[in-house]
Order: sequence, then C-alpha cells, then structure tokens
Amino acid sequence: MAKELKEMTKRADNYSQWYNDLVVKADLAEQSAVRGCMVIKPYGYAIWEKMQRILDDKFKATGHVNAYFPLLIPKSFLSREAEHVEGFAKECAVVTHYRLKNDPYGGGVVVDPAAKLEEELIIRPTSETIIWNTYKNWIQSYRDLPILCNQWANVFRWEMRTRLFLRTAEFLWQEGHTAHATREEAEAEARHMLEVYADFAQEYMAVPVIKGVKTESERFAGAIDTYTIEAMMQDGKALQAGTSHFLGQNFAKAFDVQFLNKNNELEYVWATSWGVSTRLMGALIMTHSDDNGLVLPPHLAPIQVVIIPIYKGTEQLAHIDAKVESIVNRLREMGISVKYDNADNRRPGFKFADYELKGVPVRLVLGARDLENGTIEVMRRDTLEKETLPLEGIEENVRKMLEDIQANLYKKALANRTARTITVDTYDEFKERIEEGGFILAHWDGTPETEARIKEETKATIRCLPFDGDLTPGVCMVTGKPSARRVLFARSY
Amino acid sequence: MAKELKEMTKRADNYSQWYNDLVVKADLAEQSAVRGCMVIKPYGYAIWEKMQRILDDKFKATGHVNAYFPLLIPKSFLSREAEHVEGFAKECAVVTHYRLKNDPYGGGVVVDPAAKLEEELIIRPTSETIIWNTYKNWIQSYRDLPILCNQWANVFRWEMRTRLFLRTAEFLWQEGHTAHATREEAEAEARHMLEVYADFAQEYMAVPVIKGVKTESERFAGAIDTYTIEAMMQDGKALQAGTSHFLGQNFAKAFDVQFLNKNNELEYVWATSWGVSTRLMGALIMTHSDDNGLVLPPHLAPIQVVIIPIYKGTEQLAHIDAKVESIVNRLREMGISVKYDNADNRRPGFKFADYELKGVPVRLVLGARDLENGTIEVMRRDTLEKETLPLEGIEENVRKMLEDIQANLYKKALANRTARTITVDTYDEFKERIEEGGFILAHWDGTPETEARIKEETKATIRCLPFDGDLTPGVCMVTGKPSARRVLFARSY
Repeated sequence: MAKELKEMTKRADNYSQWYNDLVVKADLAEQSAVRGCMVIKPYGYAIWEKMQRILDDKFKATGHVNAYFPLLIPKSFLSREAEHVEGFAKECAVVTHYRLKNDPYGGGVVVDPAAKLEEELIIRPTSETIIWNTYKNWIQSYRDLPILCNQWANVFRWEMRTRLFLRTAEFLWQEGHTAHATREEAEAEARHMLEVYADFAQEYMAVPVIKGVKTESERFAGAIDTYTIEAMMQDGKALQAGTSHFLGQNFAKAFDVQFLNKNNELEYVWATSWGVSTRLMGALIMTHSDDNGLVLPPHLAPIQVVIIPIYKGTEQLAHIDAKVESIVNRLREMGISVKYDNADNRRPGFKFADYELKGVPVRLVLGARDLENGTIEVMRRDTLEKETLPLEGIEENVRKMLEDIQANLYKKALANRTARTITVDTYDEFKERIEEGGFILAHWDGTPETEARIKEETKATIRCLPFDGDLTPGVCMVTGKPSARRVLFARSY
Repeated sequence: MAKELKEMTKRADNYSQWYNDLVVKADLAEQSAVRGCMVIKPYGYAIWEKMQRILDDKFKATGHVNAYFPLLIPKSFLSREAEHVEGFAKECAVVTHYRLKNDPYGGGVVVDPAAKLEEELIIRPTSETIIWNTYKNWIQSYRDLPILCNQWANVFRWEMRTRLFLRTAEFLWQEGHTAHATREEAEAEARHMLEVYADFAQEYMAVPVIKGVKTESERFAGAIDTYTIEAMMQDGKALQAGTSHFLGQNFAKAFDVQFLNKNNELEYVWATSWGVSTRLMGALIMTHSDDNGLVLPPHLAPIQVVIIPIYKGTEQLAHIDAKVESIVNRLREMGISVKYDNADNRRPGFKFADYELKGVPVRLVLGARDLENGTIEVMRRDTLEKETLPLEGIEENVRKMLEDIQANLYKKALANRTARTITVDTYDEFKERIEEGGFILAHWDGTPETEARIKEETKATIRCLPFDGDLTPGVCMVTGKPSARRVLFARSY
C-alpha cells in the first residue's frame, strides 16, 4: 500500500493521470474487458448507492414514481424525432441477431445468419422514444396527467475516448420522463428538477454548482430548453453534473400523444426529461480529492469514521476492544457509520494510508497510552489535521467534526471556484486567460457561429447562461455585435 | 372500472388468461413495442422495489456487497465454459455494429456497414463469464477471499414464448457471484443463500416453498449443483422461484483464476452464483390473487391500508377529513403505509373495485353515520370480509389485521399445496394424476433417460430432490429399477 500510494501521480504533475490512478487505487472502478465499459467496484458502488438512495427519496418526495422501460429500442423509433436521431444515432450499439450457433468449422460460436432481426434494435442511449411510444397508450384525457415517472437504468453510447465515470460507453443513471397538460407546468417541472439536482450537489456532494440554461448548440437533441448545473473541478475545468430538459411537444408530436383537455379539445402533451448519472462520481472525486487519495464528504461516505487500535499483545487489544465497543455503539446510535479495524494482518501505518486513500472522513486511533490518559487521537481527512481529544464525549466531537468537514469541503470548493471565475472583455484576453483554466464570464453575440468559432479557436464552450448571472448588456468580445448579457465559458470534461 | 372488472377472466374459466388480464388491469406491467420485453408500470415496480429493498438488506446482513459489471460480454467469453455456452448461446441478443447512419436513399437511419465490430458482443444472459474474467485480477492469495459480490441488473435471453413477469426476453434480477478458498465454504454459501431466498419467499411473499437440489438435466449450465426453491401456483403448477448454484471450480478453470493458499500452493478458486428475478412477481400474483384482482401480502404491499370517505357535501367531508387525519398519522407512526383517497372525481364504488383490483390488504370506509356512532367499516382483501369496528383503537386493530392477513395468506397457500401434493407408485397412476395438476412424489431410477421420457410423455419435470423429503428407497415407477428416494414431479411455468 505504501508502495502503491507512492506510485500515485501528483495532481500538479499530471491531473488527468492522478484522476485515473485514484479511481483505480481507491477501488472505485476499473476498465473491463469490453472496450469503454467499466466495472464499478464495491467501494465505488457503495458511494453510488448512497447517491441513489438520497436522490430517489427526493424524487419520491416531489411526487415521482419509478417504473422500468425496455433496454432495446426499435431503430425506427429513433428517426421519429428529427433532432434526436441526429444526436444519438451516431453512437449506438446495434443488435442485429438473436442467436449464436456452433461454428461448423470448430471456431467456437458464431452469429447464426438465419437469426437476423427484421428490424435492428439499439441499446437505449436515452429513453424518450420508447417511453413516449408507451405514454401514447397511457394518456387519453387531462385526468391522466401529469405522469411523473423516473427510471434507474443502464444506458449505452458508443464513445471513442472513455474515462472511468466521466465518459464511458455504458453508464448508470436515472432518467425522469414527465408528461403534462400545459406548457407552464412542464417548464416548472424541468426547472424544479434542476433545483433538486442543485440541492443534492451542494448539500450532499459538497459541490457548488452554477445553474443556468444551455445555448441552442449545447441543448439536448430534441429539447426546447436544456437546464444544467455546472461544477468547477480542481483543475479549473467545468463538468456538467446534471441536466433537465423542457421538451415542449416535440416527442408528443413524434409519437402522436394527444389528450382531451378540460374544454374537450385534443392537444399534444407537454414533456420534460432529466437525468444524472455515474458521472457524478467523477465530479465528486475531482472536486475534493488530494494527492493522498480520495476525500469524501461525510454525507456520501460509506464509512464515515474508522477506528484503529495501536497495541502490543492480546491483553492490550482486549482493553482497547472493550473501550471501542462503547464508542462504536454510541456513534451508530447517532446514525454515524463506523468501522473498527482491529485486523491483525495489516500494520497501523498500512491502515492509515489505506483509509486516507479511501477518503474516510474521520480517523480515530486508540493506543494503550491513550487508554491510561483518557484520550484518543483524531484525524480529519479534509485537512489531514491531527489532534488529541478526551475520550469523554468523543462521539459528540466526532459528530460535530463530520458536519464541519461537510461544510468545509463545500466552502473550499466554492472558494476555488470564486477565485478562478473572472470577467473578461476582449477576445485576446479571453484567449490568454482560458489557458489558465477556470470560468470566464464574457459577452457573446448570441449566434451559433460565434460560439463555434470560440470553441474551435480556444476549446472553450458556453457552459450556460447562468440564472443568477449579470444581465447587463454589452458587446460581443469576438464580433463587437450587441450582447444581451454575459455568459459562462470554460473548457470542460 | 366496474366494466373493466367484469371483463376480467375468471380463474376457473381460463387461468392463463386470468393471469394476463390481472397483470395488465392491476397496472403491474404491459407488453412493450419490443417483442418479448415488458414495461413494468409504477404500481408493479413499487412492489418490485419493496422486494429489492428487503433482499438487499438480507444480502448485506450476510456480508455481501453490491458492484456493477458490464452489460455486454465478448462472444468468445461464452465459449470458455463448455456447458455454459450450450446453455446460453442459443438465445442471446448479439451486438454487431456500433453506429447507424442516414440512409443515402432517404430511408431513415440504417446500420453503417463500416462500423462492424471485430468481435461481436452479446447482451448478458447472466454474468458468470465477465465476472470471473474480472475476478482473475482481483484474486492472488487466500487473503483476497472470499469475494461476496451481488449485482442488481437487467439481463436478456431471447425467448420465443413470453409471458409478463414469468418469461420475458429482458428481465430484472440480482445475481450474486462469490469466490471462495475451499469447496466446503462455497457449498455452504450456495446452501445459505437458498435459505435466504426461502425465508424471503415465506416471510414476505407468504409463498411456501420446497427447498431441494435439481437433477443433472435441470442444472444451471456450468454448475456442479443447483439448489432451488419451488412454489406451487393456484392451478397446481410449479414455479421455480429462485436458484443458487455451487459452481465448483468450473469458471475458475475456464478463466484461469488461481490463488495461493495458506500452504503457498496454487489452487483454483471455488465459486457460487445465485439469483432471483422479476419472475417473483409472477409467483406472488399467482399464489394469492383471486377473481376480483390482486391480493398482496401486507409485507410487500405498497399501500397497506386505504381509507375512503362516504359523504354528502363539503361540510360532512371536512368532519371526516379531520377524523381520518388522526388515524392516518397514528398508522404512519406505526410504520404502516396508508392512503386516504378523498378525491371527488371518482365514486366510492369505483374506488372500492379499484383498490380490490390493486390488492390493498385493508380498506377502511368512514361515513357521516359512522362518525356519529363512533364506528368504522373495515374490509380485509384476503377474505373480502367486512365488519364494523369502534373508531377507538382502530389503528391497533388494523395493525393486528395486517399481521393476520400475512399469516393467513401463507396458511392458505400452504394448505393448497398440501392438499395437492400426492404420493404415487405406478406410472399409470402418475399419468392420470398429473393431469389434475399438483405435486407428485414418486420414485425414479436416477437416469436422465427416464427423466426425459417422463417429460416427453407427461410434460412433467423433476422439480427437485427435496432436502426434507422422504429418503426411503423404492423402485422407479417407470423402469422398476432401484430408486434411492422419492423426487418431486410437476408441470411447471
């Protein structure tokens, strides 16, 4: 472990390599034998499960229910919505056959040419098409609305360049798909779910986000408006952490989903969709972690507190075990997840490094000397600060420390973002400053052409038009044409 | 609704059609646009979520952790284990291409022939191969063992004849995959997980099951032993509700997974796998439901109690609302899920039929007259018995009634099974009695040939050699050869 830790790249040396090392060494995920697909390892999955549970509770608290729709989508469904097919057909996994057979020439199993599908099926890259095809049968009148469904599922998009959690061919996500009687209600739903995502990111992930609306070129394929939460990673790059789409009547029209409104008139249904994925794991890791490994906010840490004994001989250990048992019990009563690691096959130094790597927020170390003195050593993972505290009342101190770590991680991330968000007025300055990373607020003339030129020349994209942004008009930094407001630029993951 | 109910087929008329009607009308699931794939509707999914949560807690309480492995498996992996490929290659969805493109002749999108995969990928029918290929890198020494992983996932098996929940091309399941240092430990794990399944079926689903071991011909492809829990449906047919496999070293050898044991010798790893699926929904429905619709055991009912007001005018309703609020609060404090349906757009009769159809275990009806008298009408779904009880203490009575319903459903199902389980000694009698449905305990000579002949001639299969069965030797009912013990025959789903 000490050896493995040494092998981990430092952020300053190679941020990208540091990220990959960390994901693998902290046992979060690894590449699988299938190109672009990852294995999510138990420790990584435990964090994802915590995210799922919290989000699922939030969805249910806002009136949503879960359902499940098919993995495979008939090819022709994709073509129904013109923009949608452009956005997704390019990168999908296509099922063409339904059987293998023994190779008559002894080469194992081969595709059975007799088992060719009449119409190819694609593995869902997202489920709007199959879901709206289903909703058609669920909706007749305004009484059937709204429909507020969510599904937890795997999706597949063939990606050429993949990175664990950030961009993988298969990923896990949730996708909400709602149907409404009015435009206003659908727009409010899309906005509301973005707020749910933002609250989750900030309160649980300790990741500050900027809420805003995407430009036309960055919109979801088939949406009228895409709302987004954008986070800044430690290297100054942006990461889109969640999106919520107001789809208008596009999918209702594509799948002919109409309802009788209160005036007994036929109308197309209004739609939203919204999703977050295992990509959130990438955002979590890259926002807080350091050169020693993962740093987890307590609200998402599978193990919030680890206790390690330092002892010589079984008699000392027995004394420590007895004391720790009562600490463990009291912490658990307080709803804190705690692990006591008194395994004798690993040295304390090894354990220290391992739990640091795994990002356990608080570490308690109890030795024979501590027992005599009525003290215990406490280390917090976010600052790596150690202190010796009285054993008496340690549980309450740990509880407060966990809250403090949660708040501190958010504060630190916010400070980083604030320090690296600048306002720029000329394109020359923009081109220079974008090299440093960070967010840039600048004027833009509102055209896709200028946006494309900036992307081409600087690799920066418009992350969003922030809801809370400066609405003072100005002139475009590139063309000098009028600009309604500053927009948020960054290079991104 | 009353009309829809009437349209539901009676069990006595056509059991199979009754089942299909029920699944659709109770809003549990429906066929999708993709052949053999179902949509699990919110009400059905809510039951599945309850099952998942309970099982997941049980897995974790027995030391298991969740992880996630890829959806797609390289075709060549299937061939590594000889029996496994025979069992699964016949019926799999094959991904051959990774891109669609616009049809140059204007026919929408077509498969891009330039995007053909070098090696085809199949959608997992089960994950032993990809998981053991992964475990190879996780396991070096006995210190890395055991590995106790589970995954919740979708799987795909191309089925020609599908039925909602019972047999669908795509289904949801959990699959546990464990790796052990010794044969004994792996066998104990496989047996232990079968006990977990049996407890779940009996305590939560109220479905009595017979635990036993499968014959060689009915084993999982690649297993040394397959343990099973078998349930009897109301029509006397058997349903395999869960299986747990002792895989020996078959997959370790196929994927070359060896470990250094305590004596520093290289050894192949021992394996198990075990799974239950959305098929459990079919077992649940077919065990308890009746001609009025679904009957749910309280432990799995998304809504355990529904309360319906009978009133004239808003003033009466206001009085009832006030009284019901305190009942709802007290029931919720007791951990009981309750719905108060005072919606004014549906008549009480409609609501009664709807909640009966949905299998809500207890219905309370409160009218203005009741309020005066201090009474409330209670109906239990299992027996459809109605009684009028004092309002005072109604919560405790409801709590007891829910427990009673849970116990009664199990008792009823067990009585049905007992009544329809017979012992038979001659093949003539067997052929006659098997037509009635039910379980038959009979002697068999232990050969696959006789087993196949019985299946061919009677459509009955050996469900298992029950663990608790009669071990008295005898003679095979077909061949007259010696038989070690009676085995369990039935026709099955």
